[in-house]
Amino acid sequence: MTSTTPGTPSWRGFASDNYAGIHPEVLEAIAAVNAGHQVAYGDDDVTAALTAAMREHFGPTAEVFPVFNGTGANVVALQAMTKRWEAVVCATSAHVNVDEGGAPEHGAGLKLWTIPTPDGKLTPELIDTQAWGFGDVHRAQPGVVTITQSTELGTLYSVDEIRAIADHAHSLGMSVHLDGARIAHAAVSLGTGFREFTTDAGIDVVSFGGTKNGAMLSEAIVVLNPDAAPGVDFLRKSSMQLASKMRFVSAQLLALLTDDLWRRNATHSNAMAQLLESRVRAIEGVSVVRPVQANAVFAILPPDVTDRLQKRFRFYTWDQATGEVRWMCAWDTTADDVEAFAAAIAEEMATA
Amino acid sequence: MTSTTPGTPSWRGFASDNYAGIHPEVLEAIAAVNAGHQVAYGDDDVTAALTAAMREHFGPTAEVFPVFNGTGANVVALQAMTKRWEAVVCATSAHVNVDEGGAPEHGAGLKLWTIPTPDGKLTPELIDTQAWGFGDVHRAQPGVVTITQSTELGTLYSVDEIRAIADHAHSLGMSVHLDGARIAHAAVSLGTGFREFTTDAGIDVVSFGGTKNGAMLSEAIVVLNPDAAPGVDFLRKSSMQLASKMRFVSAQLLALLTDDLWRRNATHSNAMAQLLESRVRAIEGVSVVRPVQANAVFAILPPDVTDRLQKRFRFYTWDQATGEVRWMCAWDTTADDVEAFAAAIAEEMATA
Amino acid sequence: MTSTTPGTPSWRGFASDNYAGIHPEVLEAIAAVNAGHQVAYGDDDVTAALTAAMREHFGPTAEVFPVFNGTGANVVALQAMTKRWEAVVCATSAHVNVDEGGAPEHGAGLKLWTIPTPDGKLTPELIDTQAWGFGDVHRAQPGVVTITQSTELGTLYSVDEIRAIADHAHSLGMSVHLDGARIAHAAVSLGTGFREFTTDAGIDVVSFGGTKNGAMLSEAIVVLNPDAAPGVDFLRKSSMQLASKMRFVSAQLLALLTDDLWRRNATHSNAMAQLLESRVRAIEGVSVVRPVQANAVFAILPPDVTDRLQKRFRFYTWDQATGEVRWMCAWDTTADDVEAFAAAIAEEMATA
Amino acid sequence: MTSTTPGTPSWRGFASDNYAGIHPEVLEAIAAVNAGHQVAYGDDDVTAALTAAMREHFGPTAEVFPVFNGTGANVVALQAMTKRWEAVVCATSAHVNVDEGGAPEHGAGLKLWTIPTPDGKLTPELIDTQAWGFGDVHRAQPGVVTITQSTELGTLYSVDEIRAIADHAHSLGMSVHLDGARIAHAAVSLGTGFREFTTDAGIDVVSFGGTKNGAMLSEAIVVLNPDAAPGVDFLRKSSMQLASKMRFVSAQLLALLTDDLWRRNATHSNAMAQLLESRVRAIEGVSVVRPVQANAVFAILPPDVTDRLQKRFRFYTWDQATGEVRWMCAWDTTADDVEAFAAAIAEEMATA
Repeated sequence: MTSTTPGTPSWRGFASDNYAGIHPEVLEAIAAVNAGHQVAYGDDDVTAALTAAMREHFGPTAEVFPVFNGTGANVVALQAMTKRWEAVVCATSAHVNVDEGGAPEHGAGLKLWTIPTPDGKLTPELIDTQAWGFGDVHRAQPGVVTITQSTELGTLYSVDEIRAIADHAHSLGMSVHLDGARIAHAAVSLGTGFREFTTDAGIDVVSFGGTKNGAMLSEAIVVLNPDAAPGVDFLRKSSMQLASKMRFVSAQLLALLTDDLWRRNATHSNAMAQLLESRVRAIEGVSVVRPVQANAVFAILPPDVTDRLQKRFRFYTWDQATGEVRWMCAWDTTADDVEAFAAAIAEEMATA
Repeated sequence: MTSTTPGTPSWRGFASDNYAGIHPEVLEAIAAVNAGHQVAYGDDDVTAALTAAMREHFGPTAEVFPVFNGTGANVVALQAMTKRWEAVVCATSAHVNVDEGGAPEHGAGLKLWTIPTPDGKLTPELIDTQAWGFGDVHRAQPGVVTITQSTELGTLYSVDEIRAIADHAHSLGMSVHLDGARIAHAAVSLGTGFREFTTDAGIDVVSFGGTKNGAMLSEAIVVLNPDAAPGVDFLRKSSMQLASKMRFVSAQLLALLTDDLWRRNATHSNAMAQLLESRVRAIEGVSVVRPVQANAVFAILPPDVTDRLQKRFRFYTWDQATGEVRWMCAWDTTADDVEAFAAAIAEEMATA
Repeated sequence: MTSTTPGTPSWRGFASDNYAGIHPEVLEAIAAVNAGHQVAYGDDDVTAALTAAMREHFGPTAEVFPVFNGTGANVVALQAMTKRWEAVVCATSAHVNVDEGGAPEHGAGLKLWTIPTPDGKLTPELIDTQAWGFGDVHRAQPGVVTITQSTELGTLYSVDEIRAIADHAHSLGMSVHLDGARIAHAAVSLGTGFREFTTDAGIDVVSFGGTKNGAMLSEAIVVLNPDAAPGVDFLRKSSMQLASKMRFVSAQLLALLTDDLWRRNATHSNAMAQLLESRVRAIEGVSVVRPVQANAVFAILPPDVTDRLQKRFRFYTWDQATGEVRWMCAWDTTADDVEAFAAAIAEEMATA
Repeated sequence: MTSTTPGTPSWRGFASDNYAGIHPEVLEAIAAVNAGHQVAYGDDDVTAALTAAMREHFGPTAEVFPVFNGTGANVVALQAMTKRWEAVVCATSAHVNVDEGGAPEHGAGLKLWTIPTPDGKLTPELIDTQAWGFGDVHRAQPGVVTITQSTELGTLYSVDEIRAIADHAHSLGMSVHLDGARIAHAAVSLGTGFREFTTDAGIDVVSFGGTKNGAMLSEAIVVLNPDAAPGVDFLRKSSMQLASKMRFVSAQLLALLTDDLWRRNATHSNAMAQLLESRVRAIEGVSVVRPVQANAVFAILPPDVTDRLQKRFRFYTWDQATGEVRWMCAWDTTADDVEAFAAAIAEEMATA
């Protein structure tokens, strides 16, 4: 059995779905396309097959641009969706705002109009707090709304909630981007495919995440409304996100779309989070503080318990002030891992 | 035998060393580090081992920052090496100038002071044509010289030539970057290790290329003089070049540094270019127009020959005006591939 | 008497201190330096005299860089004060955040970490809500705090409040910028010179405002701590803020510093705001909702009163939701203007 | 008589048309619009009158955006004319390339594709050396051609030459910008109005220069083809080029357009350059090395003569290597100034 203790050869923890490795089927898919030469930069057979596969999920007009990472997907997409003088409306807690080292501003000159939210989710009403001043040169013009699905706080937009946002944004002349770093987890949680809450709900462009769901490193910009995002091919290059040996980036995403691997992985991650939540709710003194709607559990622990627990398992403190911690489940998290972790929490709480 | 005809399942051509796949040892190395969790974003065992290995090659103070691609390596390095008001001096033919979609300007606001060269190589005298105006606010201040080794034209700097450039640049208060997209091919051709023409010759920062030498996608910024490049860790993130599952990027470069794979691959590629050159020189009417000092052969063919030949083998026309074409040999190019290609050239020339 | 009705040849209103013209002494100063040639771009006698005059106010090591406008002063200063990977901490209500069309992000790639405040003023405690994550590559590194004095809400920092902010920021390794678009109004209100709440309180760089205090168009970056802001001369040029005929920009600021014109103008503007406040407080149903500490009065009116009043006098609605309006007094606002305006407010309230 | 010796109170030299002051009619025009309040940021009567006046010169659909300086005009215009992934084609000697401190790259991320020219002038054939690679993501896409009229080398495009460039650029899908820092000098030299070589010749956007022709500081972006330059109003703000007290910027340009002041000033400057050329051609050993087609004379002197002469009169060495110097005539240069300068040159040559 694989250890859950950091420092041993192959431990597993609850710090991040990025700490997990590559799903075997993804690794096999990389190896499977390794023979011979392929045209570089995306004019290869694998990328063509990926586009075909994505179109089955997102509709026949989807355009697919594989990139290296989520920051790249977001920053390239948002550039393509904005004119030089337009800004991006997002939740204050959005990854583009707080966790990308200022990449949207640094690499693309994009201003973010941020909105505090209780749960990481925007609404038409919240959007209105920043989507105003159209035509006023003193105000960076709101051009696009970006939402994250599932959110950075482990919460989920319903299809109707997304449609309401998209309708509202479009009525203001804005377009809508969905940061789908965990789009698979969202689809599984909603019980839908990708299309229902993206193409069909009015989303214009998706950052499709693979890395957190079993890929090695692979994301894609999926343009659902080409009018909303011109020049993605050029901007991908000038934003340093164009892989030369593209076939290997595309192969990873294609593997996730093959035999429903995306769904199997996300279903498992989400189930592990549910299991963890149920175990933790049974431990007195620990509060689960956000709905567990994807593969994250947010809880509040006494600080000393957190300290001791972090010596045994890797995970992050989310908010030093409140003592909130974040536990992520990955495609490779096992039920045994969860049980061992829950037992450890209970132990440390018992000596609190 | 693998076909050299495009369209067949596993053809090989002479278009680019990026058309080749992953060397089996690199692929094995990726698989070998796939067990369990590792801390994301570079605090992992594999990246630590890579740093140790790089230090054996470049000296004990080298700092290593793996990134996704060569454009990323160059643009992050050049940002770190320049103050906000400084510019980059480079050959007009430099990849950063002509082949990165404007990424240095777009992503980092960097002005390039370009210098025409006969062979892709700068000299102190050529550098002086742009490295002037220090202190003049009207002139973007020359802050760094970047050279490519081996160059985009298949040529090579000698150790002494690099040292002369570095000494000259340093005497002007500038630092020196080496774009080593094909650094392995250069070392093999020089018959040295990496250190002799980088650290020991006065280079401050290297973009270390892996992808063109058998990796899937992996390059690294190797900082030899930390004073010359502060903030690379932050700039790698804000420039969208930070891999979450870093271990797999690092593993590729580590594989190249293991059992001299880098040298074996580059030795082979260079030898194939030499073989191709020797075969082509024997064909009447074809001129090899640049010294073959790495894995590229540049030649001039009659346009109609080029047209017919490109229907049989993939390669690029380098200069439409002169009819110059570029043939690249990769780690997987075989002697049979070269012989077949040379025979085809001879055939097409015979009917010219 | 000058009319206060828009549309007549020379009306005056309460919309902005930017609606006022040039003080006669400033205009005379421009004319006075118009003879003959002067070296362009700042190497002229007038700019030298301005530097000398500024040093009398800010201390002997101050460096002075005249620019065209306040956005330019702020964006150039903040660039000089930050490394390429650093961000700016500011109040959400700061001009750099809400009123510069995204210039800090667009022109300089600067991320703003914004902080909601009750009164436009930061405190060490508020700064701590964003000044964290030092060393974490995922977080754009907090590099500088910018405060506005007097604030965009007409409020004022005390000398002690500024010193506390500066001490705190410096203890975190950050530097401090003061946006002094209305620095004269602040000095008058504090009853001090400029130095007491800038140089002596630990401010590193000031954007010194002239335009809102009687200049035609003239601001200056005043660097108090040269270590905190290298390269201002280069960045002023590359940010399009370098005037060729600089003497005329410098002459305006020099005129403000001559015979205490800055103080006379600001004293008058502030007094007019005090007069307006006192008159308005006497009108039932109108609430003055912020301390009147400079030349602005913020009040809440019934919306229909605002509508009718804006047909008679120019002024801006500050917050559509609450009905808050802003009334600015300028160097040329007369007591008669204020009385006429107050009478009009009373009239419209009477019919509310 | 005004001295021509630097250091005396009101000397005049031949260094730059930016060393001259403000024409009295411009200064009067500023004073004339100083009464009362005007709406800030361009919604004022003076700016409206300027637009009307400009339309008489450039045609009824021209849009006019006053800015502070030439760098600002160029960088804002070029941003508006390019998509985020497009680049600018220009002569290597263009002001935007060599004399703006890297502002196009720094402030707007614009790549410049530069073209060496013998005389500062592009041609369709020269443009073709950089205007290629359309659709290739590796090549920053050529989006706009910018030419300077009159050029930085004192030369002039004919109307036909401009039309040929515009037709060619348009046929490639590119638009055309004219940097008219000395547009008045060009019109005078051509013997036309502005429209003949701009609107009527196919130019899309003009940077209209006032400062070098008698204004204090005032330039304007004149958009002739609105489809070619969306968003100038927003970009002017986010590029720090929007004046609050705009009426005073507009008044300067309006003064130049009133009673043909622009023509009077430029006619005089050009005539002084002609006079200087004729005097200098009579001095043995001095070569005038470029056609004198505007207000600049370029000549080659022995270095020691240049050194001694620069102690008596201000002017710039243009090319240290060849000994080429530049002499500019301004609106206020007198025939006496020219005669005195020519006499001094003759004296110094006599002792060479």
